[in-house]
Amino acid sequence: MMSGRGVVNRLAMVIAAALGCAVAAAPLRAEDGYALWLRHAPLEGEALADLRAAAPVVVAPPGEDDSPTLKITRAELAQGLAAMQGETKLRATPDSLPIVLRCGRARGDGQSGFAIAPQAFAGRRALAISAPDHLGCLYASFALLREVALGRPLHAIRLGEAPAMPLRMLNHWDNPDGHVERGYAGRSIFDWWRLPERLDPRMIDYARANASIGINAVVVNNVNARAFMLEPRYIAKLKRLADAWRPYGIRVFLAARFSAPIEIGGLARADPLDPAVRAWWQAKADEIYAAIPDFGGFLVKANSEGQPGPQDYGRSHAEGANMLAAALGNRGTVIWRAFVYKAEDATDRTMQAFAEFVPLDGQFAKNVIVQVKNGPLDFQPREPFHPLFGAMPNTRLMLEVQITREYLGQASGIAYLGPLWQEVLGADTGRGGGVVAEVIAPVGMAGVANTGSDRNWTGTDFDQANWYAFGRLAWQPALSSEQIAREWAAQTFTRDPQALGTITEMMRASREHVVNYTGPLGLAHLMGTGHHYGPAPWVCDLPRPEWNPCYYHRADKDGIGFDRTARGSNALGQYAPAIAAQWADPASIDLRYLLWFHRLAWDAALPTGRSLWAELVARYDAGVAGVDAMAAQWGRLAGALDAARHAAVSADLAIQRREARWWRDASLAYWQSLNGLPLPEGAAPVAESLEAYQARNFPEAPGQ
Amino acid sequence: MMSGRGVVNRLAMVIAAALGCAVAAAPLRAEDGYALWLRHAPLEGEALADLRAAAPVVVAPPGEDDSPTLKITRAELAQGLAAMQGETKLRATPDSLPIVLRCGRARGDGQSGFAIAPQAFAGRRALAISAPDHLGCLYASFALLREVALGRPLHAIRLGEAPAMPLRMLNHWDNPDGHVERGYAGRSIFDWWRLPERLDPRMIDYARANASIGINAVVVNNVNARAFMLEPRYIAKLKRLADAWRPYGIRVFLAARFSAPIEIGGLARADPLDPAVRAWWQAKADEIYAAIPDFGGFLVKANSEGQPGPQDYGRSHAEGANMLAAALGNRGTVIWRAFVYKAEDATDRTMQAFAEFVPLDGQFAKNVIVQVKNGPLDFQPREPFHPLFGAMPNTRLMLEVQITREYLGQASGIAYLGPLWQEVLGADTGRGGGVVAEVIAPVGMAGVANTGSDRNWTGTDFDQANWYAFGRLAWQPALSSEQIAREWAAQTFTRDPQALGTITEMMRASREHVVNYTGPLGLAHLMGTGHHYGPAPWVCDLPRPEWNPCYYHRADKDGIGFDRTARGSNALGQYAPAIAAQWADPASIDLRYLLWFHRLAWDAALPTGRSLWAELVARYDAGVAGVDAMAAQWGRLAGALDAARHAAVSADLAIQRREARWWRDASLAYWQSLNGLPLPEGAAPVAESLEAYQARNFPEAPGQ
Repeated sequence: MMSGRGVVNRLAMVIAAALGCAVAAAPLRAEDGYALWLRHAPLEGEALADLRAAAPVVVAPPGEDDSPTLKITRAELAQGLAAMQGETKLRATPDSLPIVLRCGRARGDGQSGFAIAPQAFAGRRALAISAPDHLGCLYASFALLREVALGRPLHAIRLGEAPAMPLRMLNHWDNPDGHVERGYAGRSIFDWWRLPERLDPRMIDYARANASIGINAVVVNNVNARAFMLEPRYIAKLKRLADAWRPYGIRVFLAARFSAPIEIGGLARADPLDPAVRAWWQAKADEIYAAIPDFGGFLVKANSEGQPGPQDYGRSHAEGANMLAAALGNRGTVIWRAFVYKAEDATDRTMQAFAEFVPLDGQFAKNVIVQVKNGPLDFQPREPFHPLFGAMPNTRLMLEVQITREYLGQASGIAYLGPLWQEVLGADTGRGGGVVAEVIAPVGMAGVANTGSDRNWTGTDFDQANWYAFGRLAWQPALSSEQIAREWAAQTFTRDPQALGTITEMMRASREHVVNYTGPLGLAHLMGTGHHYGPAPWVCDLPRPEWNPCYYHRADKDGIGFDRTARGSNALGQYAPAIAAQWADPASIDLRYLLWFHRLAWDAALPTGRSLWAELVARYDAGVAGVDAMAAQWGRLAGALDAARHAAVSADLAIQRREARWWRDASLAYWQSLNGLPLPEGAAPVAESLEAYQARNFPEAPGQ
Repeated sequence: MMSGRGVVNRLAMVIAAALGCAVAAAPLRAEDGYALWLRHAPLEGEALADLRAAAPVVVAPPGEDDSPTLKITRAELAQGLAAMQGETKLRATPDSLPIVLRCGRARGDGQSGFAIAPQAFAGRRALAISAPDHLGCLYASFALLREVALGRPLHAIRLGEAPAMPLRMLNHWDNPDGHVERGYAGRSIFDWWRLPERLDPRMIDYARANASIGINAVVVNNVNARAFMLEPRYIAKLKRLADAWRPYGIRVFLAARFSAPIEIGGLARADPLDPAVRAWWQAKADEIYAAIPDFGGFLVKANSEGQPGPQDYGRSHAEGANMLAAALGNRGTVIWRAFVYKAEDATDRTMQAFAEFVPLDGQFAKNVIVQVKNGPLDFQPREPFHPLFGAMPNTRLMLEVQITREYLGQASGIAYLGPLWQEVLGADTGRGGGVVAEVIAPVGMAGVANTGSDRNWTGTDFDQANWYAFGRLAWQPALSSEQIAREWAAQTFTRDPQALGTITEMMRASREHVVNYTGPLGLAHLMGTGHHYGPAPWVCDLPRPEWNPCYYHRADKDGIGFDRTARGSNALGQYAPAIAAQWADPASIDLRYLLWFHRLAWDAALPTGRSLWAELVARYDAGVAGVDAMAAQWGRLAGALDAARHAAVSADLAIQRREARWWRDASLAYWQSLNGLPLPEGAAPVAESLEAYQARNFPEAPGQ
């Protein structure tokens, strides 16, 4: 035998080396972001010891009603609490802390809240979840898990919550062919083609994610709607979704094309006062309710950007909306968008919705909601709040925000939108209604979804935070966007306090960076045509004047900005006098809105001590520097979270750094071509020529 | 203290009930299909005991060269062998069986094979993997894991393999905007928009899956190409992919738009004999090779379906291809598609490629390959083999098949394509070259990919089998499609022999069902316009005659079928005389090709004893019954595999059952409207009117 000790030892060494290598090369199951903020990563240290010592179990008192919602509630609690102990199921011990579900009998409509508090059960210490309905208990269970995930000991949890507004809604701009308008996260999550037979399991995960943040309504299709989605084959598909989502408290709505009676009904007209048209919609509503008894209603974009509407027949928005409202009756709601503007109307585009809708105040049926975008233009990185808020006291107004980042970098880098939304929710309307959040409190809030079939749902990891923040703010606008950022990051990435501090700080500042490098000092709508990607302030040749960036910046050799004071378009006049007064004077206006409302000379002196031109350049530079800083901060977090997501976000930030420079340089090159001014001393030179920036071309840009 | 024994007992019972419920409701981590055939599910029973007893470890002899490919090889072996033991890493024991890698020094080009056999190592029993290059060792490692996964004991494994053809290639019809032409599995897996900064981890999983079945070349973009993919920004993106895929032995190719010198080069013409055009392509090739030294070359669709090409300048396909070949030089290959036909050419469409290309035989440069579809029409459920095979002895011919099921149900149900490809690979050309597999052996085989960003890659679970079968057949066309189905199913679903038998049988028959319910007896091209979804044999008004179903079936009150004999178009004359003779007589022709080559009266007597009409109806019915049978077989497999994928496939089959009936009924309703014949006794009536079938409309059908 040759196998002496030496050979065996050598073999053992080789094997050990081989094993070591194999293990080193073996990736763990990568974090791919699919679990969103519901990862329920195991706790660490004292928090873990506390939870294991509590050994919670979930208890529904005998005789309690059961329902699909309650089954889900129990399963979520049990799985989440087990996972955070590093286990796959709960283990009862003699000292187990019962978590007792005390849920009222009604199926919830998402309007009721819940309480979580210590309470005796069977003679021992327990934690009770109380809610008037089963859905309240589901909401409570997600709230409880969130608290535990944030490291709160079970015995210290006392919560009493109720939603601030009834409708907390996602609007999907998803087309039935799977394309998502302004979507940057892959194809639509809705697989209409294979419904109703095939229900993608993702549809359950989607409902669960929504329920975990209190979202209770979903418009499944694009406001630029296709009529055929009202055909029977689509009603069958929608019913499958409605049935799957019902236990999660989510009602389905459809975006309806106003001319559907012509396109699929065989009628010659869609005039809302035509009895045949009214009968067609009535029958259509009845057909939908026969399949989906809790169908939410219709969302309508009418007489806007080429969509048909009542004005095609000389009728008003109210006449159009009320006709559909009558078809729904007391079963559902019509949500009518106030996002309207006309090429042939020479009025400042930002003033047209107000001009059209305020005269209709009081004319809308009870079950009509008018949905108003946060600002008077179109989801820009920053706009003043929409003057309609507070100006239609006899109309149910709902806020529409955009979660998908059409104008804020799309799927590049990080732009946390909590601060943007908080800005509008907290805006004082200067009218009786109070701040915007108070105006919409009786109605609700809609967010244009940023979901897609990308594995991480939202294209980038940080865009999950925008979905999350939307739900949390619709539930409770008084939450601070920093708190929301922190709780999201803790559930999503890491509980390490230092890392959390860094991430929260990155998020807090991120949107302001985008404002700075794309449109500082109140500039807006300077992006590329069609796809809205990248800078194109030079564009001035589009057929509709108000589609041109030059319409908005009005820059020439003398100055820049849109005069919306009484000397100009007087958009200011649409605001309450107290608000208008704050903004009327360029010397005292919040600089965030300066060029939105005022046209100034390039050398105008600003309160900052700089000329307008120098201030503009400084803000562009601050935007670029801010993104650089985020990338550096993120770089230092390597090791604080999983490598897969760290690498993905690093790549996102690399793209954002490139794009921030491009925006800054292309914009400055263009402004310089008008004003002939040199860059202030110390400012980095522009990297390429204006012509080179103008020649860039992106026929394949996503989301259009 | 009130907590007497009774209360405690009651609490314990409640808790136990609650736990039981929670556990029952807790889903396991669902099988979502992402792992493809590389699941490496733990073995069971004796096979598991054998593997654990062998306790394999992976050993690379000291001094061996290392490379990224070898690192991957070791990691794959270690992870796969551990996973099949139910472990996360290998454990060495004193009796461990070393698996010794003996890999030659070259980076492989995918042409070399490998051997696996017992061999002594360090004086003990071992298993040796030998290959002339590192890629051969990677291929061997996947082969070894496959054998183990199929339950073969390590000590019994002896393999010697070499690929049957050099190029085993996927063609992606993926557009840079993420849309996949004829894709039914979601958006493109290629995220061009965020490359080069962001490399989706899926790109590694994709390369790994390809390597595991021997695929060694990928054309990343649609043959209907956009010129801008040749711009520098796309070369940088492609380089990132090439670098990521290189260790897996995958070379990248680009589909090139022939008119790119005009569109992105600023030239006025793209004439292949114009020196400026030649210089432009030469510089472009040099630019690509500077970034990607092993760039594979260009795939070109020229002068076909609206694509530009050399004929725009009065030049031949050979002149066009040779110009590009000169630009690539000895660095790469031009793959030139033979899929050409013209509206203005009155010749039978199926004859045009032959007529155009045969005269060019011998004129193509050495580094040009002509890529020929399996049949002379266009990827129909069944066609006779393409007559070009064997007819161009002085040209390098490559076979093109379609993995995505454009004409075979798209993402509905099950249609396993192994038998289809085996039919063409085994087709005797009747000429010197032998069967088609022999004709292409010196060159290769391309498959139009069916991948997308759906979680399961291919839209349905069973479509993974088509990707798998393509790779396996390109590696070794002599494998039987049944064997491939069985090994795929065993790795993908279950090793239970009875379940495996059922699944293999379902797969074996599935394509024939599709033939029967869509186009029996040699009928073809009867599908809906544009999207190619569903039946539309009545369509006869499209501007190009050869786009109309009526062009192909030629049915009227007297009969049906396309006379391609010498009395008709004489497409038969393009085949070798011995083959043509087999097919010339309707009395003796294989019935699979009957109406492809012959036009017959509805009451013609067939060798089956039935009239043509009765036989047609019987075949449609057999197709419907076959799908019903598959659904029933699959239903009985509940419990034999995971619930998630069982439910998904059940849904797929429910869709296919609906579609099979629709094809059968709509087709029969139309034939009856022509021939006025009743259905044979016992045949199920047609469910709806012809008008109802004709009115169906699918503007949102995917993949167009």
